[in-house]
Amino acid sequence: MFDQILAARERLAGHAHHTPVMTSHTLNERVGAEVFLKCENFQRMGAFKFRGAYNAISQLPDKQRARGIITYSSGNHAQAVALVCQLFGVPATIVMPDNAPATKRAATEGYGATVVAYNPSEQDRKALAEQLAAEHGYTIIPPYDHVDVVAGQGTAAAELHEDVPGLDMLLTPCGGGGLLSGSAIASKGMRPDCKVIGVEPEVADDATRSFRTKQLVTIHNPPTIADGTRTPSLGEITFPLVLEYVDDMQTVSEQAIIEAVRFLFYRMKLVVEPSGALGVAALLSGAVPASGRVGVILSGGNMDAATVTTILNG
Amino acid sequence: MFDQILAARERLAGHAHHTPVMTSHTLNERVGAEVFLKCENFQRMGAFKFRGAYNAISQLPDKQRARGIITYSSGNHAQAVALVCQLFGVPATIVMPDNAPATKRAATEGYGATVVAYNPSEQDRKALAEQLAAEHGYTIIPPYDHVDVVAGQGTAAAELHEDVPGLDMLLTPCGGGGLLSGSAIASKGMRPDCKVIGVEPEVADDATRSFRTKQLVTIHNPPTIADGTRTPSLGEITFPLVLEYVDDMQTVSEQAIIEAVRFLFYRMKLVVEPSGALGVAALLSGAVPASGRVGVILSGGNMDAATVTTILNG
Repeated sequence: MFDQILAARERLAGHAHHTPVMTSHTLNERVGAEVFLKCENFQRMGAFKFRGAYNAISQLPDKQRARGIITYSSGNHAQAVALVCQLFGVPATIVMPDNAPATKRAATEGYGATVVAYNPSEQDRKALAEQLAAEHGYTIIPPYDHVDVVAGQGTAAAELHEDVPGLDMLLTPCGGGGLLSGSAIASKGMRPDCKVIGVEPEVADDATRSFRTKQLVTIHNPPTIADGTRTPSLGEITFPLVLEYVDDMQTVSEQAIIEAVRFLFYRMKLVVEPSGALGVAALLSGAVPASGRVGVILSGGNMDAATVTTILNG
Repeated sequence: MFDQILAARERLAGHAHHTPVMTSHTLNERVGAEVFLKCENFQRMGAFKFRGAYNAISQLPDKQRARGIITYSSGNHAQAVALVCQLFGVPATIVMPDNAPATKRAATEGYGATVVAYNPSEQDRKALAEQLAAEHGYTIIPPYDHVDVVAGQGTAAAELHEDVPGLDMLLTPCGGGGLLSGSAIASKGMRPDCKVIGVEPEVADDATRSFRTKQLVTIHNPPTIADGTRTPSLGEITFPLVLEYVDDMQTVSEQAIIEAVRFLFYRMKLVVEPSGALGVAALLSGAVPASGRVGVILSGGNMDAATVTTILNG
């Protein structure tokens, strides 16, 4: 798999941003380590998801891609697929729950995608996408359980290891496990001594429990503010990769996530969404004791006014 | 004066951050120019003010500095003086109105300064600072009307010209004129073809009117959300510098400022305070028609929850 990450890097060059790494004296003092924040909130469309979507869609044969792409997501993967399709000039269809926030729907449509709403209590999103794909000849690009998506997501950690040699630890948020498994594979390929730790909200700890018990645990609609981690479970592809390559998993409280978003906002002037702040939450709360050189992937910065207001005033 | 900016650069090396320059495809497309944003929101204590305060305080003889520094400000200059004094291990006293927001007072005290509150309807802040300085042997470092402060503020534009050669235009917020005059002097020294434009809120257009009429105009407590530009007028030192070195002044509406803060927040994931977003407001609103290569100084990112909430939900 590491070779596929290296190939993805070449494919993404000039298309994805090589995002900057930020540091903070205050953060280093607070946690007693040298912390390096990989700013995927500055990635195109505001999150690492662009990497996986671009890596997968750019590899499709021209004819197949021209028939269109479909996916199911109300979050950053939807915007990523929409933007990549816009860049290639091919149609994108996004299956989204009819109760998704209007801002998310508008952002996806802003990149030129067609949104198909479904009733989540009556319909299965994956089945609906498969039906539409069969009818129209679309290719499905799932949000995380796809080898090319995982390889694309791994390029963020690869860039970080290149820019910051000698990391002792890398903290990565975990939703469906695409970013986490890609980051772990990149780390083992480039810096085998770097311990890779996935971070989840306490109330959405399906991957942590799956990692510990080696049995896939599913949690539907966990009540976390970190909406990028509300995926019910790891995938068929990502679960074995997480078991093989990831060193540990840790969880953080909702309050720790909120405090991390606030710290990044007030002290570092960075807009980072709750899911993106999980690594910093683990460090600031002490859930992960830090030492040496610690990398953290800030996975995204897409956050609506209601979420910001809740976090800053809560 | 340009030599003093070059000397300030050497003095600040290793103490102030050499802040990054950010760009945005979306912003370039919206305004029809190549825009380069100098991120002084990432400067120490969150604003360019650190540069001027450090440049002034570091030049004082040790004995004089050890007796202590005093200034009058409720904004970023207060925090800058407090932090610089903390770095030198000397006492800082900040004269602040007794109705200043608790968060600003707390931030200043967080850097170890002593805050002296006064009643703005009964007392003059400058007179009070002078009285305390005389009593205790403090040195006054005013917020903008001081040659070493102006030279320090000019180092941000100097870095930008070094990092981004060939700028055709530079937009800079204008409050008391320290940043604007320093930026203009740096620009004329390094890139004489670059047109330097100061930007003010429409409702706080004292400097624009002073620039046009060549008579110093004063506006007390203008009702702008851009609190860094609520200074009543240019200073005795900055007014002639602005007249000599600045090419033009423009104003923007409160709505344009709010939209610029939102754009920087949602599209670029940057926390920029209203005063810091004036240049982007001028570009996005069309107040300054852009072409070629345009530099913009994002002067700071210190914003409390109430301001953010108003801007994002307003």
